[in-house]
Amino acid sequence: MQIWKEYQEKHKERFLKELLELLRIPSVSARTENKQDMIHCAESVKQRLLEAGADTVTIYETAGHPIVYGEKIFDPAKPTILVYGHYDVQPADPLELWKSGPFEPTIIDGKIFARGSADDKGQFYMHVKALETMTSTNTLQANIKFLIEGEEEVGSPNLATFVKANKALLKADVILISDTSMLSMENPSIDIGVRGLSYIEVTVTGPNRDLHSGVYGGAVANPITMLAKMIASCHDENNHITIPGFYDDVVASTNAERAKMALAPFNENEYKTDLGLTHLWGEKGFTTNERTGIRPTLEVNGIWGGYTGEGAKTVLPAKAFAKISCRLVPNQSSVKITEKILNYFKTIAPAGVTVTAEEHHGGEPYMTPIDSDAYQAAARAINTTFGKEPIPVRGGGSIPICALFEKELGLKIVFMGFGLDSDNLHSPNEKFDIVNFYKGIETIPYFHQYYAEGK
Amino acid sequence: MQIWKEYQEKHKERFLKELLELLRIPSVSARTENKQDMIHCAESVKQRLLEAGADTVTIYETAGHPIVYGEKIFDPAKPTILVYGHYDVQPADPLELWKSGPFEPTIIDGKIFARGSADDKGQFYMHVKALETMTSTNTLQANIKFLIEGEEEVGSPNLATFVKANKALLKADVILISDTSMLSMENPSIDIGVRGLSYIEVTVTGPNRDLHSGVYGGAVANPITMLAKMIASCHDENNHITIPGFYDDVVASTNAERAKMALAPFNENEYKTDLGLTHLWGEKGFTTNERTGIRPTLEVNGIWGGYTGEGAKTVLPAKAFAKISCRLVPNQSSVKITEKILNYFKTIAPAGVTVTAEEHHGGEPYMTPIDSDAYQAAARAINTTFGKEPIPVRGGGSIPICALFEKELGLKIVFMGFGLDSDNLHSPNEKFDIVNFYKGIETIPYFHQYYAEGK
Repeated sequence: MQIWKEYQEKHKERFLKELLELLRIPSVSARTENKQDMIHCAESVKQRLLEAGADTVTIYETAGHPIVYGEKIFDPAKPTILVYGHYDVQPADPLELWKSGPFEPTIIDGKIFARGSADDKGQFYMHVKALETMTSTNTLQANIKFLIEGEEEVGSPNLATFVKANKALLKADVILISDTSMLSMENPSIDIGVRGLSYIEVTVTGPNRDLHSGVYGGAVANPITMLAKMIASCHDENNHITIPGFYDDVVASTNAERAKMALAPFNENEYKTDLGLTHLWGEKGFTTNERTGIRPTLEVNGIWGGYTGEGAKTVLPAKAFAKISCRLVPNQSSVKITEKILNYFKTIAPAGVTVTAEEHHGGEPYMTPIDSDAYQAAARAINTTFGKEPIPVRGGGSIPICALFEKELGLKIVFMGFGLDSDNLHSPNEKFDIVNFYKGIETIPYFHQYYAEGK
Repeated sequence: MQIWKEYQEKHKERFLKELLELLRIPSVSARTENKQDMIHCAESVKQRLLEAGADTVTIYETAGHPIVYGEKIFDPAKPTILVYGHYDVQPADPLELWKSGPFEPTIIDGKIFARGSADDKGQFYMHVKALETMTSTNTLQANIKFLIEGEEEVGSPNLATFVKANKALLKADVILISDTSMLSMENPSIDIGVRGLSYIEVTVTGPNRDLHSGVYGGAVANPITMLAKMIASCHDENNHITIPGFYDDVVASTNAERAKMALAPFNENEYKTDLGLTHLWGEKGFTTNERTGIRPTLEVNGIWGGYTGEGAKTVLPAKAFAKISCRLVPNQSSVKITEKILNYFKTIAPAGVTVTAEEHHGGEPYMTPIDSDAYQAAARAINTTFGKEPIPVRGGGSIPICALFEKELGLKIVFMGFGLDSDNLHSPNEKFDIVNFYKGIETIPYFHQYYAEGK
């Protein structure tokens, strides 16, 4: 629609400026020290939604960080699109690797460098600006509801309670999420699945105090060494995960499905060059895209213990720690896998150390049906603005709340993400290309139009 | 000698007070931020030596922290005892486990809690107070030289240069070191060996940036997992070290030697209770005392990588790090072992990661001859003040400079340590019993007397 394009072209500098302001708020949900920033961020989101044309916006308190809910109901007879997104971001560590401040958004070569630029402030904000476009040009075709939470990066611990208690409020026809990536701007794609997640933090305890490694070394089990042995044992020589029962519930992809996936454009040399690697790694018998898409994984996200400062200290530490997470595929259950990992670690802990574990957030895997109205509308919208049919792919990341949405609200989800794999999500120098931001704002109204037409 | 006892009894409160003042200086040699504290500490040591009766005291600059040299030459015809000690201390981390500030010495139940209380400020200071005792009572029997360095805890990187350049200055008949422990006050002992040390810091590098563990997990070698596998592979199922050639130069103790060692009092249940452990650990075929005395070991002193903050972060980190040290026994060579470990890690590094390593300080193992004049004088001195013949034992710790002293100065070393294994050396809540401090000051003049008599 020419009228959308004209409006967006006229206001695009302001759209970008508003996003940069939002990116300046250090809304790190994992850190208690950012509690006030979270409140500040929720209030900013509320204000922006009202400015964009929402009828009402409410901040709901939770046991953790607040949820922002807003809606624009222009005709109850029309279909309703529920947009889910999150205003919280991952911690910015390691800070020293950022080329500019993680909360001082910096534009270089048309890319916005900031924590949360792609994940997910930049992406949910496209929907806010799409709302503004449609209300300002009087072209709304569907009702729109916004559910923007502040705990996605810590596993949405309070969203389930909210969703269960507010089913009427959240009543809609489809859920639309922009929190994933495309293969590239030349090869637009739609994620048709997200992986589930199990996340544990393991503490290995040996002696009741740090010991002198000369006086006690060799006679007392070293918690770091024992933890290393436990981690090492999680993968066998083929990089299969060895935890008993880990693969029990995995639905194997058929050869036909795998053959179809293999058609997606992928250049292994470019992939390696981008990562600075000469060799890739992974489960024997699967391609790189299969390893990150259809197979479950186990990764150590952090490890620490003993002396980690400057120079040398000859200590045999009392404790060692690791953060370990698994990505899950249908029909693995986060609860079951977490239990299996915990049991495994406790079972293999050698005499002389004890293992305790804390469970961080988890989430179930989710697959979106490719033959649904919503998927078809998304594919058509992307085809309209990109001039190319999007490729369906299975993404490696997790949006823990998806399975719950389906169960509690009875809704299907469509992932219309405009990020790129190279956006450095969860890493230093996270970025979002300005062109992708604008392309998203341009594409979303078409989704509304096609989805409303299809209903 | 009654006159020593009387003098010490009269001044003991001051002796203690002076030590506490020295312990207040955070002389952590490993940390550049403590550089000024190191200078301050060296100056304090100089002042105390002058007050105790030294003729001259000089602070020698080095490429690192300064060396304090002082002497009391009362009769060049008499034998000369060179006292070696160190005024630097280990880092105090982890700070949160200290019950009182590491540099705020606190006396509880007759124990001085402070970093450096036993290792080694409290111990070398016994020699300063013994000097004061003998000069004040006009009872010197031997000349005395003090070599108190500031880099023992970082491997004495600049002491060798100093020793080689100052052989005339350091000319003596024997080296006396109080930097080791006794079995107990009821079972006094003398260390007849210290182990050598190799210390490396390993960096495992994978991708060129931290990655999202959902997007890349399973397809890229995780540096933490690879490091864990490498560490895990260093010990086999019998806890023998697997590094090729590691044991090549180890001089095996004879059955007779091992039988004699087994006579030293040792209660394994008390040892376990003290450490809060239900099971010990170690190399198959050796007892606990053998594992810490006559066998080489490999311990991980620190490990870190990825996200180690509060909560959860789903990152596949670019790098992982470990500090790893080995204790060595005769005739292992620190240089050779360091090279073997480095080669081993580089050899086993899987494709997809690279290993680099930095070498921290090392030192050679050292054995003191039990039939020497000096050992005999030390045994007699301890017998005099403790009323019991000391047991010769092989200690687990390292004093890296010993082998060099023997080589460059042609001197034998006697270890007359008054600490206890329970002193929490290198750990939080390091302590030194006041009774041990006084017992040391009481015993040292007898060593001077017996050693001078034996010459």
